[in-house]
Amino acid sequence: MDLTTIIGFIGGTLTTISFLPQVIKTWKTRSTHDFSFIMVFLLCTGIFIWIIYGFLIHSLPVILANMVSFILIFIILLFKLKYK
Amino acid sequence: MDLTTIIGFIGGTLTTISFLPQVIKTWKTRSTHDFSFIMVFLLCTGIFIWIIYGFLIHSLPVILANMVSFILIFIILLFKLKYK
Repeated sequence: MDLTTIIGFIGGTLTTISFLPQVIKTWKTRSTHDFSFIMVFLLCTGIFIWIIYGFLIHSLPVILANMVSFILIFIILLFKLKYK
Repeated sequence: MDLTTIIGFIGGTLTTISFLPQVIKTWKTRSTHDFSFIMVFLLCTGIFIWIIYGFLIHSLPVILANMVSFILIFIILLFKLKYK
């Protein structure tokens, strides 16, 4: 694996795992009041398109990072819809 | 511009503009209680590394989208530090 791909994976890992403490916090507090619904919705949609883009440019960091991010953001979206 | 780059720009535009309604909402409410500090911090750091990766793979959508995202997330980070 070359340095570029490693840097991509570091960026991808950081942005992806960043959503995990948020899922845990929201799971505990059941509070999503401060979140903008539009942000969570657009983020979900945008990340889905990033996954497609990752496949098109054959970038494994873009594909994997966005797949995991999508799952986590989708959980936050469900929280936002359930706990308003 | 080819289709791949257009798709990259659509994904980039969506994930980037998603943070704008959040900045506006947080600006109005001055409330960041529901946000995980670790999320906002890791997101900032990760997006910064994505910018570097974008330069390395010569992907304009990755560079531009993450640059704007970085600015917006950084504003949210400042809000989070100021209004706890």
